[in-house]
Amino acid sequence: MDKLTIIKVGGKIVEDEDSLQQLINDFSAIDGRKILVHGGGRSATKIAAELGIETKMVNGRRITDSDMLRVVTMVYGGLVNKNIVARLQACGINALGMTGADMNIMRSHKREVKDVDYGFVGDVDACDAQMLSRLVEVGVVPVIAPLTHDGNGNLLNTNADTMAGETAKALAKYYDVTLIYSFEKKGVLRDADDDATLIPHINESEFHRLTSEGVIQGGMIPKLENAFSAIHAGVKRVIITLATAIDGQQGTIIEA
Amino acid sequence: MDKLTIIKVGGKIVEDEDSLQQLINDFSAIDGRKILVHGGGRSATKIAAELGIETKMVNGRRITDSDMLRVVTMVYGGLVNKNIVARLQACGINALGMTGADMNIMRSHKREVKDVDYGFVGDVDACDAQMLSRLVEVGVVPVIAPLTHDGNGNLLNTNADTMAGETAKALAKYYDVTLIYSFEKKGVLRDADDDATLIPHINESEFHRLTSEGVIQGGMIPKLENAFSAIHAGVKRVIITLATAIDGQQGTIIEA
Repeated sequence: MDKLTIIKVGGKIVEDEDSLQQLINDFSAIDGRKILVHGGGRSATKIAAELGIETKMVNGRRITDSDMLRVVTMVYGGLVNKNIVARLQACGINALGMTGADMNIMRSHKREVKDVDYGFVGDVDACDAQMLSRLVEVGVVPVIAPLTHDGNGNLLNTNADTMAGETAKALAKYYDVTLIYSFEKKGVLRDADDDATLIPHINESEFHRLTSEGVIQGGMIPKLENAFSAIHAGVKRVIITLATAIDGQQGTIIEA
Repeated sequence: MDKLTIIKVGGKIVEDEDSLQQLINDFSAIDGRKILVHGGGRSATKIAAELGIETKMVNGRRITDSDMLRVVTMVYGGLVNKNIVARLQACGINALGMTGADMNIMRSHKREVKDVDYGFVGDVDACDAQMLSRLVEVGVVPVIAPLTHDGNGNLLNTNADTMAGETAKALAKYYDVTLIYSFEKKGVLRDADDDATLIPHINESEFHRLTSEGVIQGGMIPKLENAFSAIHAGVKRVIITLATAIDGQQGTIIEA
């Protein structure tokens, strides 16, 4: 199977001029078939504030009422996405900005209200790997914004980590997929404040042991759960790494 | 040659909830290969005002400084474009929202400053008809927002009429193209205030005669110049019609 690299980058790196250009350069340097999935939360919060719309977060997730949905549609699908696309094109990368609605690549349903009403937030139902594969095979590089649609004409705000994971799982049928989750740390650390304690490889039993011992905690737990879920679905390797180290050689590697 | 219909719709129709749904229905009903090019100026002006950014127009064109470029990138590329895409998907149309930067379909250069500095406004250099054709051939319906890029990483605000015309000209190599310019009138009228004076067909010599007689004037002149330019470049027919009458059977028809 041909190799495919899917990289998820957070809002922070794509919203700062210098770090965005570094990302564009690093991403351009990756050989072969590739897909970028990006966030954009900081810009959404900023533009919302300028429009007099208050940002409410619960458990690290954005409450998305109809006004906030308009903001994230503008910011994720327009401002952030199209600027990345234009810059990749300048590097000779044939980027195509997409949301889940474009070519129907990712469908979702509005999250059920349990303890919290997250509003217009989507939980992913399906990723059309065949359409994405067709694009990738003609040399197109999809750049995916964290929005999906419900098939009834409604866009839904969707977690970028989840979208990257679902894209990787769906494409594992066609490719030898490496999924790279980049963030602000070097990878999975024994001591979150000490980069020297990087765990270069981790398997599922070690993950469970380190979690029960309290070594792995907080936001790293769902990140690793996503990683193992991807591996179980056929993704060959998941890498958790710094946003400035997306060459596939650094960070914490989880392999099938 | 296979038939292809390219429809340009102005901002007004896509920015009102009821007229947008009518457009979605009408566009969905058009048989065969098709492309939609849309505006969005009213929303851009509204969002700009909410952000405290003043809209300046000269000769009916938007002065686009860096703040306004951010606004039109959000509004045209995000808000307006993605809502159309999601609604078309709900009608079973496999829409793909694009700017000129996406898949490098339309390149431009920043307009030279002569009498007026329009700012980040693009004059079109090239349309990649082959890439568009590849999409159309797999059943994708491109939905194009009025933004292009300069190949150096910069997005540029671009007139939607021009983008529709350039798209039609480039695709005339591959298809029997019908280009439909929709607007707020029934077509070319002898008396702009009387729909009953519709001119159902017009050729270039009649256009020149009616212009010299003062029957055709104002904004209709550049519209018809665009139309004849498209015909000279191989487009089979151009139709100027109401936004609620885009079935190809109504309005003023200009044929090769």
